[in-house]
Amino acid sequence: MGKKEKVKVSFNINKKENFSNWYSEILDKAEITDIRYNVKGFVVIRPLGAFLIENLYKLWETELQKRGHFPVFFPTVIPEENFKKESQHIEGFSPEVFWLEKKGEEKLALRPTSETAFYQLYSLWIRSWRDLPLKLYQRANVFRYETKATRPLIRAREFYWLESHNCFASREEAEKQVQEDIETTKKIMYQKLGIPFLPLKRPEWDKFAGAEYTIGSDVLMPDGKVIQQPSTHLLERGFAKSFNIKFTNKEGKEEYVWQTCYGPAVSRILASLISIHGDDSGLVLPFCISPIQVVIVPIYTMKNKRKIWKKVQEIKNKLEQEGIRVKIDDSEKTPGEKFYFWEVRGVPLRIEVGEKELKEKLTLFLRDEKRKIKVDLKEIKKQGLNLDKRLKRKADKEFKNSIINCKSLEEVKKTLSQKKIARCNFCFIDKRGEKCAEIVEKNFLAFVRGIRHDIKEKPTGKCVVCNKKANVVVYIAKSY
Amino acid sequence: MGKKEKVKVSFNINKKENFSNWYSEILDKAEITDIRYNVKGFVVIRPLGAFLIENLYKLWETELQKRGHFPVFFPTVIPEENFKKESQHIEGFSPEVFWLEKKGEEKLALRPTSETAFYQLYSLWIRSWRDLPLKLYQRANVFRYETKATRPLIRAREFYWLESHNCFASREEAEKQVQEDIETTKKIMYQKLGIPFLPLKRPEWDKFAGAEYTIGSDVLMPDGKVIQQPSTHLLERGFAKSFNIKFTNKEGKEEYVWQTCYGPAVSRILASLISIHGDDSGLVLPFCISPIQVVIVPIYTMKNKRKIWKKVQEIKNKLEQEGIRVKIDDSEKTPGEKFYFWEVRGVPLRIEVGEKELKEKLTLFLRDEKRKIKVDLKEIKKQGLNLDKRLKRKADKEFKNSIINCKSLEEVKKTLSQKKIARCNFCFIDKRGEKCAEIVEKNFLAFVRGIRHDIKEKPTGKCVVCNKKANVVVYIAKSY
Repeated sequence: MGKKEKVKVSFNINKKENFSNWYSEILDKAEITDIRYNVKGFVVIRPLGAFLIENLYKLWETELQKRGHFPVFFPTVIPEENFKKESQHIEGFSPEVFWLEKKGEEKLALRPTSETAFYQLYSLWIRSWRDLPLKLYQRANVFRYETKATRPLIRAREFYWLESHNCFASREEAEKQVQEDIETTKKIMYQKLGIPFLPLKRPEWDKFAGAEYTIGSDVLMPDGKVIQQPSTHLLERGFAKSFNIKFTNKEGKEEYVWQTCYGPAVSRILASLISIHGDDSGLVLPFCISPIQVVIVPIYTMKNKRKIWKKVQEIKNKLEQEGIRVKIDDSEKTPGEKFYFWEVRGVPLRIEVGEKELKEKLTLFLRDEKRKIKVDLKEIKKQGLNLDKRLKRKADKEFKNSIINCKSLEEVKKTLSQKKIARCNFCFIDKRGEKCAEIVEKNFLAFVRGIRHDIKEKPTGKCVVCNKKANVVVYIAKSY
Repeated sequence: MGKKEKVKVSFNINKKENFSNWYSEILDKAEITDIRYNVKGFVVIRPLGAFLIENLYKLWETELQKRGHFPVFFPTVIPEENFKKESQHIEGFSPEVFWLEKKGEEKLALRPTSETAFYQLYSLWIRSWRDLPLKLYQRANVFRYETKATRPLIRAREFYWLESHNCFASREEAEKQVQEDIETTKKIMYQKLGIPFLPLKRPEWDKFAGAEYTIGSDVLMPDGKVIQQPSTHLLERGFAKSFNIKFTNKEGKEEYVWQTCYGPAVSRILASLISIHGDDSGLVLPFCISPIQVVIVPIYTMKNKRKIWKKVQEIKNKLEQEGIRVKIDDSEKTPGEKFYFWEVRGVPLRIEVGEKELKEKLTLFLRDEKRKIKVDLKEIKKQGLNLDKRLKRKADKEFKNSIINCKSLEEVKKTLSQKKIARCNFCFIDKRGEKCAEIVEKNFLAFVRGIRHDIKEKPTGKCVVCNKKANVVVYIAKSY
């Protein structure tokens, strides 16, 4: 299939009703990933996907650096002895670990996450309270042998993330960091990219292996399943004890450090970005993150070709001076083919320049609303920012309408069948509540995702499962 | 060891005479790497190293994108069947490959390089001449089981690079790409970073496994050994045939594509950057790449503290408006401790602000010349650019003085013992010359590195080894 043929593809799949198919097709047609690599669970990220992942990394790295984190690169391999140091951790991760064939004496794992790599060095780097806080992160690919069905970007055996590992002198500071991580997530994922989420404190039985507690960010995908986005963990001092990470405090006494970690999986965030904003015609990318923010399509005849091209170049130069990422589509396709090509790929704004536009205002196509308006060149940036606001507003509304208060298991069932999240009174999210959660899971294949961490929600009745006094308000959802 | 104690370290090692020690110590004292990770050949890259690696990536990625390359991310694992498709390639790499313990049916390798990952997909992506040229790259970590002694950044079992893999419709275009790659190397490594190198066409027996020919960039390290920096390979059509990468040409006929690949190893380039410009007092970083370009050290008493801090903040703001990366050292160290701290870490410019500087010009310390001058604030950027020019000029001079014309093996021996590169007449760099190269290797533990690719050099006498007619001018050096 040559370039000529490729562009004739049109895209028209009902995202809401047939999400699974929509998702697979858009990754293929917008050339984000290729699933034909010959290893199960490993996909190839194509240029559009790679640019988006790079841009997501940039957003998170900039924000983390602003908040006092520094980058590092740790080895991809972790020796077995490190893993064994924290028993809960190895128990949680060992079924998922890829091991290397032995070369030397040591047995090596491909990192599924890097606590046990970082913390060995932390025990060497930290000596006194002056070395704290220590806030480091790395951009890294990690490996997990998923046994459930894999899906590109959503659940793969290799994925791309950032992991930040932090040490503090007190529990108070560590908890502040957890709060800061949630703010970082909110600032980028919600305020910038327009992806709404629930910051939920996970139930005891669902926390990170080795953590005291875990706050996950649940995003609702169009098929009614939530997906965990950045999670942040208060590690208490379990790892510090296993790895002997101590500091001398201001009084000259030795203490173990308090630790947190935070892990935005950028490839999975990309999956949400695609799924939340995309529509039945393909991708819709926020202006702020799109590798191409404005595509210019010249529409000319042999007669006015020169004038049109001059104008098109002028527009490009002006926009680039404003820091906008612009592409002129100078391919041999017809204008109609070009429109399709960039619509499927989600370019937020398209400027069409024909004979009329030489004299009058520009014709601007808004990808999200799929309509054309007339604008001055100097309005383009504002139009981009407005588009992002609309995307956020739309996603917000949908998300709010998808959280339903449920007073009975019957209502929970109905809510889940409508691809929504059930908000209910519940007995406990510590060990005492696990039985009730198991009933939910068994009956509905759904999960008690936890309680709100950003606000305090007071239960007013009885547990939706066991009917005993409710102590918490939980969110129940199907999940990836 | 707390922060207080760390800063008291001073650095004073003769780089030229004791390079090996200098190199190990500077990596440690400037906190670039940590070798205490408990797996042989794998080191931890600390913040200064990570920032520099990020900046190097940025330089190369910007340049590659300008020249029409697009980013991708391929899986880290490569199935054995892909490897086996190109016999020379597997033969060249298989001793170095890390294999994973089998999980499914397929045997998986950690990529030592990604030709056999990319090219399987290229056979699916390329159909017609319209799909060409295809120019893709990825930033990636690669894995090689080195059996020689490992050295941080120089030879490690995991390292950080970019690999660009390109397909063309004709040999001519492919050779043009090889030329372009050399220009890219020259533009960044030499013109920007001030690291001189020889672009050498490798002898037949030393080319990349699966290539028709290889151009390597040899940088001379202070211990007299050359290190290969970015190499670019004309793959001819061996891989295209093994992976069945064909296109329909404009005449409608099927042809195999012509391929090239290019691999700047950014972690190894960092090793050269450190080694070429560093001096006996520590790191010296070029202004253009240093994560901190200007450090400001306030020198105050209780009396003028407020005024000094105000001034320092003003200077920082003004410089940041110019796009300069500035840090105020507001730690509790003494000014002397601060000077040492940033000198070892190679910060190119230091501004000292005391009572005098409130009225007169600023005091600027130039890291490369280790002297202070008086300047106006608006000159700072120019001083940074000048510093880079001086570094380049100094490296240039040293490099030129290190290439010695040798007419006999005796002279070669003497040149090598003086930590220099021997330039000699030689019989052949195809198979016919291999015996002579073996004699060089056996006698001097040195290597025939190849012939100049950027200029044509005519031999005027006889082969320095066999005394038969010389057909080429080669460069002989010890190497990493």
